Amino acid sequence: MSIGFDPSALEEFYKEIEQQRLLAPLWPTADGVAYRDQTRLPFEQVVLIAHSANDLAAAIQSMHIRGSGAIGCAGAFGATLAVSSAPNHPEEWAGLSAQLRAARPTAIILQKAVDEVLHAAAAQPGTAVEAAVNAAVAFFRQQLAMERAIGQWGQTLIPDGGTILTHCNSGALAGAGYGGRVLSVIRAAAEAGKHVHVIAQETRPYLQGARITAWELVQLNIPVKLATDGMAAALMQKGLVDVCVVGSDRLAANGDLVNKVGTCLIALAGREYGVPFYTATTHYNVDLACPDGRSIPIEMRPGDEVLSFNGQPVTVSGIGGIYPSFDITPASLLTGIITERGVLLPPYTPGLTALMQGGAGI
Amino acid sequence: MSIGFDPSALEEFYKEIEQQRLLAPLWPTADGVAYRDQTRLPFEQVVLIAHSANDLAAAIQSMHIRGSGAIGCAGAFGATLAVSSAPNHPEEWAGLSAQLRAARPTAIILQKAVDEVLHAAAAQPGTAVEAAVNAAVAFFRQQLAMERAIGQWGQTLIPDGGTILTHCNSGALAGAGYGGRVLSVIRAAAEAGKHVHVIAQETRPYLQGARITAWELVQLNIPVKLATDGMAAALMQKGLVDVCVVGSDRLAANGDLVNKVGTCLIALAGREYGVPFYTATTHYNVDLACPDGRSIPIEMRPGDEVLSFNGQPVTVSGIGGIYPSFDITPASLLTGIITERGVLLPPYTPGLTALMQGGAGI
Repeated sequence: MSIGFDPSALEEFYKEIEQQRLLAPLWPTADGVAYRDQTRLPFEQVVLIAHSANDLAAAIQSMHIRGSGAIGCAGAFGATLAVSSAPNHPEEWAGLSAQLRAARPTAIILQKAVDEVLHAAAAQPGTAVEAAVNAAVAFFRQQLAMERAIGQWGQTLIPDGGTILTHCNSGALAGAGYGGRVLSVIRAAAEAGKHVHVIAQETRPYLQGARITAWELVQLNIPVKLATDGMAAALMQKGLVDVCVVGSDRLAANGDLVNKVGTCLIALAGREYGVPFYTATTHYNVDLACPDGRSIPIEMRPGDEVLSFNGQPVTVSGIGGIYPSFDITPASLLTGIITERGVLLPPYTPGLTALMQGGAGI
Repeated sequence: MSIGFDPSALEEFYKEIEQQRLLAPLWPTADGVAYRDQTRLPFEQVVLIAHSANDLAAAIQSMHIRGSGAIGCAGAFGATLAVSSAPNHPEEWAGLSAQLRAARPTAIILQKAVDEVLHAAAAQPGTAVEAAVNAAVAFFRQQLAMERAIGQWGQTLIPDGGTILTHCNSGALAGAGYGGRVLSVIRAAAEAGKHVHVIAQETRPYLQGARITAWELVQLNIPVKLATDGMAAALMQKGLVDVCVVGSDRLAANGDLVNKVGTCLIALAGREYGVPFYTATTHYNVDLACPDGRSIPIEMRPGDEVLSFNGQPVTVSGIGGIYPSFDITPASLLTGIITERGVLLPPYTPGLTALMQGGAGI
């Protein structure tokens, strides 16, 4: 049963993915939305098919699909599945996509993507499905354009022959497929002809750096070495790092950065040893309602999650773990903030405000 | 075949281990020297028997026995095995213990222990074995006394109800059995009636914190939680750490600290968030010949060692790893240095010099 995407109409889209060498986290097919199971990478490369918006909601909740850009694209293409399952009943669309729209409450981009597609479909009764598909593809292309812009701005900060230290995964599979945030900067530097090397921190307990960032860089033929999460100072002491680039879960109005636990330690080492430290981000990650990092709640995840690796225990049974999943890097430790509209330098409040207003003041 | 240790003469010694609730890394038996295989802890508790000094040399080289104090005790008891295997041929002892004496070139304590025991045996022809055993037991007791002294000095720095963050393993199994360096401080605080809690960093890639420190604390009934190596800043931001205590591989004359990779990041976070940071050490670890940390060579171990956990790969095959096994924590980040003769405060050079001279200037 075809549920929405016309294969012939999608041909041009597939060609685009192919030609641009995109590592897309998901893509439309005649049967539904195909997506990579990111929890099993790199040991297994599994592609699953979502037949409904609810299937995509489940894929987000189980972390098969993760990362701001990828979640946005899941919202856009998932909404088209809702429309195509009841093309002549627009009153049902919101209900059919409600679970998807709420699948990751912190990701504002998800709600925005669902709403954009449903709105476009509602505006074209009779050709609602086509309108939804077009809106979803447009959303996807807009994400890609944003990643390329981040790459272009950010790559100017990467020296030829330089080694970039990064943490966790802020890459293509967390975005629309070019390079997400951080890997767009690295990819754009390589595409600009610079010889770049990457050191990826493994990022315990879930090893997103070891599993996903390293895998993406191998696909892109960019040299990468793996380090553990305790090595930033040692590597800088030996002069092995030229620049640090990390992603961002959320940025406060003053530039305080909330990102995967371990990020702040890299920034502290960067200040001590004179290595520039940047975050690559977009306006989707800026929260002007939070004046500084202290006003952003940091999630404490179940401590048990640190007690094993891939199901294998790392310690004696009977003890507990502790797992603050993010840390706050004070704005004072950031050399700059790479965005889709330029590189912000301190003080960050004016630049972040302009970014959110879509103004030209960057 | 009995090869040296008279069970009846050892009874008092065993009683001492029992009464003091020591977690001894090794102990003499009628058949030879029993030692714990520390590479398999805590998943398997395996005790092996060394029948010769060469057996103990192999146990040190394979990391079954590790840590400065434990290696010293292996040297002392191993030398008695050399003496007892040729009690009337003192000219053979040096040859029989040569492999043991050289099993860990950086551990000065090992050579010292072997020499002390052989010297004592040579001084008592006719009762050489008894003299060697007595010298080895004396060496062991001296190590224990040193650990207790570190504990007594150090525990004054631990607040009642406080949480101590530590890294890697600097505990009983790395010492003679009381608590080595760091765990002596923690154990002494608990024995002084303070309610203490420990957060142990797992210490990738070999997980000494998760495997050994956590296991020892469970044996001592001291509450412990496990964290990963990227969490120091996050934990301090949440006010969850009151004091940091780590071990020391080597201290330069100015107080620069060389210790397991990841240590410097804890110290940097400590300075940023106002959490005191101490190293617990002994005169065996001080190298006055090195003016500062830059003059201590840092071992780069094979990068492949970071690519797996317990034999299981953590990343895609075909990429390399990078493994600086130690880092340098600048003396300026140390709140104090806990030694067997007192707590040193900055500037450290006079105190470290007095410590090495065995003087009273501490």
